[in-house]
Amino acid sequence: MSDIIEQVLEKLAAGRKPALERLFELMRIASISTDPAHFPDCERAADWCAAELGRIGFAASVRKTAGRPMVVGTRKSKQGKRPHVLFYGHYDVQPVDPVALWAHPPFEPRLAEDGANGSIIVGRGAADDKGQLLTFLEACRAWIEATGDLPISVTVLLEGEEESGSPSLEPFLEANKAELTRDLALVCDSGQWDRSTPAICTMLRGLAFTELTIKGPSRDLHSGMYGGAAINPIRALAYVLAGLHDAHGRVQVPGFYDDVGELPEAQRRQWEKLNFDAKAFLADVGLATPAGEQDRTVLQSIWSRPTAEINGIWGGYTGPGSKTVIPAEAHAKLSFRLVANQDPEKVLAGFKQFVASRLLPDARAEFKDARGSRAVAFDTMSGPLNAAAGALSAEWGKPAALIGSGGSIPIVGAFKRLLGMDSLLVGFGLDDDRIHSPNEKYNLTSFEGGARSWARILAALAN
Amino acid sequence: MSDIIEQVLEKLAAGRKPALERLFELMRIASISTDPAHFPDCERAADWCAAELGRIGFAASVRKTAGRPMVVGTRKSKQGKRPHVLFYGHYDVQPVDPVALWAHPPFEPRLAEDGANGSIIVGRGAADDKGQLLTFLEACRAWIEATGDLPISVTVLLEGEEESGSPSLEPFLEANKAELTRDLALVCDSGQWDRSTPAICTMLRGLAFTELTIKGPSRDLHSGMYGGAAINPIRALAYVLAGLHDAHGRVQVPGFYDDVGELPEAQRRQWEKLNFDAKAFLADVGLATPAGEQDRTVLQSIWSRPTAEINGIWGGYTGPGSKTVIPAEAHAKLSFRLVANQDPEKVLAGFKQFVASRLLPDARAEFKDARGSRAVAFDTMSGPLNAAAGALSAEWGKPAALIGSGGSIPIVGAFKRLLGMDSLLVGFGLDDDRIHSPNEKYNLTSFEGGARSWARILAALAN
Repeated sequence: MSDIIEQVLEKLAAGRKPALERLFELMRIASISTDPAHFPDCERAADWCAAELGRIGFAASVRKTAGRPMVVGTRKSKQGKRPHVLFYGHYDVQPVDPVALWAHPPFEPRLAEDGANGSIIVGRGAADDKGQLLTFLEACRAWIEATGDLPISVTVLLEGEEESGSPSLEPFLEANKAELTRDLALVCDSGQWDRSTPAICTMLRGLAFTELTIKGPSRDLHSGMYGGAAINPIRALAYVLAGLHDAHGRVQVPGFYDDVGELPEAQRRQWEKLNFDAKAFLADVGLATPAGEQDRTVLQSIWSRPTAEINGIWGGYTGPGSKTVIPAEAHAKLSFRLVANQDPEKVLAGFKQFVASRLLPDARAEFKDARGSRAVAFDTMSGPLNAAAGALSAEWGKPAALIGSGGSIPIVGAFKRLLGMDSLLVGFGLDDDRIHSPNEKYNLTSFEGGARSWARILAALAN
Repeated sequence: MSDIIEQVLEKLAAGRKPALERLFELMRIASISTDPAHFPDCERAADWCAAELGRIGFAASVRKTAGRPMVVGTRKSKQGKRPHVLFYGHYDVQPVDPVALWAHPPFEPRLAEDGANGSIIVGRGAADDKGQLLTFLEACRAWIEATGDLPISVTVLLEGEEESGSPSLEPFLEANKAELTRDLALVCDSGQWDRSTPAICTMLRGLAFTELTIKGPSRDLHSGMYGGAAINPIRALAYVLAGLHDAHGRVQVPGFYDDVGELPEAQRRQWEKLNFDAKAFLADVGLATPAGEQDRTVLQSIWSRPTAEINGIWGGYTGPGSKTVIPAEAHAKLSFRLVANQDPEKVLAGFKQFVASRLLPDARAEFKDARGSRAVAFDTMSGPLNAAAGALSAEWGKPAALIGSGGSIPIVGAFKRLLGMDSLLVGFGLDDDRIHSPNEKYNLTSFEGGARSWARILAALAN
């Protein structure tokens, strides 16, 4: 087998340039799924992915949904070995605002150099998730080119709504259960531990989201005529939001911590051994003081503790100059990161109760777009997880770290709940990839080492 | 004299239609002074005003400034009587957002009917200040048409930056002291007491303005990766703003009330006699509970007490859908209404101190556009004030109310400070004119009764 792997890795080495050009092609498509103006771009990205799967040797097609389309492709292994895996990735990307902060246009990908990372691929979607999903497809391409076969059967599912709450995903899984229920899901949307250390993510936080509107007067008012008499919805909103955390960083939503368990002792010890440098992690983004619960480490706060964040706020006059207005309403977008056993519905109900308890007189609250997904945790002793850890270790020359992740990948919970399928989360992102921010990048070592890693994992899963 | 006045009033009655058409012409010019895109419209409005003054019989011209131009015109009375008055108005208007809330396009003025007000003139600037300033010009036109003369000499000064802080005004007054220093200023930018009761404004609140930015991380962050670790500037901003008022509605800026005097007993009694219906005033805009200091009446709160308001707030993702971001910064526009003896500089310095005292760790505050104007109060026993009150009483059939105003008219302080000139504040706006809001209107009775009132006041001032 190791001879065969060497041949596959040689194919990857020989095809480095065209592989990068394929990634650039996909990154040039502005597939922003939260913005209706970019829906046609999402269609173009789906078409590109299906065509690319076809070129690699998959039987692939674009599938309509009520929202952005899915792409599904399958390639059976001639060896007939188990497991048959389902690979998941997403072709949609985050919005790009503020565009002014991008050094180059977000959809004109390019290779650049940076002192810490060496060669980097820069542009929206470089890491999240176009670069990541192509690491897997490039591994499949190399296997087929080198051996005319894949070591195990592979179905690929690419969605286009991951960055906009995946509204079509669950109905699609339900409607295509037989085709999509495989032995194991491979999900490539997470990160390495650091530039030289691979990782498998075994804990993922969930997410609850809602948009809050505080209403006051029936119309915008002149602050000279009504100031001191009429409630200002911005003041009322600030008053609500200022109470979301207490002085110790604890979230004040009623019942928020009721179902939050303590970190198992073994996991806590393993994380301590990672020697996470919280000071450097914060310093990298210009900060010095952990903003979360004061009695937790930063790593615990981002991997195993729930949080409440205000992702956006707006109200009144925000243009140039001044306008002495008391607006009729003010708005905020909020999200809660959830950990195992927390119920998104319960958290959102608690938030409504919290808002009601802090409403100033004459202020009214409205909520929209409420939705959520549960957190997930995996068995760190499972066979496939250990096979993948071994393959990663062979590629990177050191053991794979078993880590948590602060982000949410709702698909993982849906796979388990709807298809009874476990997931293996392997990815090659880095903390400084600036995903969701201007100047997103993906290290060239992540892109190329990622493809090599998947080539090895495919073989390891077949054994 | 009363025969002459009747002839002047007859001229106004005969010229109602063209007068309204002149107002519509001016209202069609989108002279929004806070928005650079509309600077050319401000120039057009200034040109229109100078041309109109010329048609009436003034020697008028547009005068350049560092910002929007001034319009100055003079017409000497052949009678040689004192006082020579300086009339002040402004041709610029407020922004029109949210445009979607306008029933008709804001710069397509039209006459409409409403149950409470009868005929109303609808469009941006109808009341603030295009309709108001034309009441005076129409009175002058009628005097000249009826008698070939004005009863007193009149200089007209129209500015184009009243809605954007009047940055060019004081330099212009300084540079044109001789021309503009007259015996008395007439300012038409205030309101009636109610639809049938005229008013003279004898107290005006001042204004201090600033824009606050709270900065946190050096770039936008993914709330999954950094949530619970990095300070969120929106949370930090909400925390600052939520402390601006205490539970009793008192502003918490250090020293804010130090220079605030109590209302003179006589004024307090006169205001009580006005039988102001606070409940109806609030109900008109959908509210029930006074939001200001709990130990003050609503009328005192809006006329004689200082306030702090948040006029705008923005930060993070505010587009459609969700984006799980922790933004690098968040912003708010704030303004403070000031009463007699409060120093805007001192209030703004106190606000900086207040913000510093509530900054969460790792949050930094920046301020811009800080500026202000003091409040003013006039002698209610002065001769011109009593002459004007008599003229208003003759026109409307009831005594003029001597009122306060919550709004700020910085020009009045500047006239006193720079030119040593007192002002007489007479205007015909109503509380439901929706100035600074969508669907701004000016009652036809205000426009026509206003012109008639000025015709009488010009005569009364000459006696």
